[in-house]
Amino acid sequence: MRQIFHDELEQVATDLVSIAELVSTAIRQATTALLEADVQLADRVIEQDQAIDLRRNDIDARSIDLLARQAPVASDLRTVVASMRMSGDLERMGDLARHVAQIARMRYPEHAVPEDLSATFERMGGIAGRIIDHIVEVITTQDLDAARDIEQIDDELDALHREMFTTLAEGSWQHGTTSAVDVALLSRYFERFGDHAVTVARRVVFLVTGEAGSMEPHEDTDLR
Amino acid sequence: MRQIFHDELEQVATDLVSIAELVSTAIRQATTALLEADVQLADRVIEQDQAIDLRRNDIDARSIDLLARQAPVASDLRTVVASMRMSGDLERMGDLARHVAQIARMRYPEHAVPEDLSATFERMGGIAGRIIDHIVEVITTQDLDAARDIEQIDDELDALHREMFTTLAEGSWQHGTTSAVDVALLSRYFERFGDHAVTVARRVVFLVTGEAGSMEPHEDTDLR
Repeated sequence: MRQIFHDELEQVATDLVSIAELVSTAIRQATTALLEADVQLADRVIEQDQAIDLRRNDIDARSIDLLARQAPVASDLRTVVASMRMSGDLERMGDLARHVAQIARMRYPEHAVPEDLSATFERMGGIAGRIIDHIVEVITTQDLDAARDIEQIDDELDALHREMFTTLAEGSWQHGTTSAVDVALLSRYFERFGDHAVTVARRVVFLVTGEAGSMEPHEDTDLR
Repeated sequence: MRQIFHDELEQVATDLVSIAELVSTAIRQATTALLEADVQLADRVIEQDQAIDLRRNDIDARSIDLLARQAPVASDLRTVVASMRMSGDLERMGDLARHVAQIARMRYPEHAVPEDLSATFERMGGIAGRIIDHIVEVITTQDLDAARDIEQIDDELDALHREMFTTLAEGSWQHGTTSAVDVALLSRYFERFGDHAVTVARRVVFLVTGEAGSMEPHEDTDLR
């Protein structure tokens, strides 16, 4: 009975990794679609998001089933609950990748991002890709150092986000209102992507160490 | 044992209602703070958000405790899991109220919202207030009609959100880039507030009817 339970729990972890891998592809492709105004790629990201949502529902249904059949306690219970939460965070990260793709699609054949900000968004996309790859590692290995690295990588994303909002506030914006709104939303999507990654990492830290303080969802970056 | 379990479950529902009431106060005060550039009120909303976060953590800790001690199955299990998810949605709605207050605070002593859009944001704030009051009712009574009403109220919010983005895209924006970004983010915060309310309502419908399709998180409004 215990063996079956642990096999099932391991299967849930494997499925979380496979969702994280889909999210990794999604955010990389969304970034490329954005920077290259590639509408086919944008469409692919938008379509693929449904696969992420389905897998999330599947993990949640199986987690509830595990709770009902096995009535786990202590760390096993915490693992099942944490898995359901992580699946929610990963699904939301998939949504954010889709939002990036939707802006790329909406502006096609134009580029949504002005040329002088293209390099910054390329960096944001690169960091977001790096952060989700760390998530894959953290879920697989439960390595606490890798989990803590995610907070630092997220700091880079937050710094770029603040930089973007400073640029928008400077009064020298030449690209019009629509573009300002796109840039603000895009920057926020990448920033929130990082926040959810930090939340996933903290859930893993909580599972391993039992430190409850690390369960808090990661806050939005304060732009003041 | 069963009686104790149901008393505890009822206590969780009472606590969800009390979180929803805090969120109701928060979104109303945040809207007033925004429209009247009232920085003291904005500060109060920002401070009070911590109370919402604490209660959410408390509900979640007690829910996990309930799962461990009582090992509920079937509809009892679904209720505990749904409560944890609803507490998450409500906490996020509190965050969104705080974000509105933070923009009011950031622009003080100026008004963050241009005068000609003030009436639209007043309507958005009014609808958001109405929607959270429906949430209180739906959690208390599990009334399915009230739950479905929430979807319709949210449609009003989505319509105003689209209207706001049309205004921003029209090319006749006279209020500068910073203001455009503020307006876009504010509009999105109200829209997301409504989305989370719909998600909470669907979770209640799911609990009552067992229709799993209604468990999906409510999607962002597509602005294309």
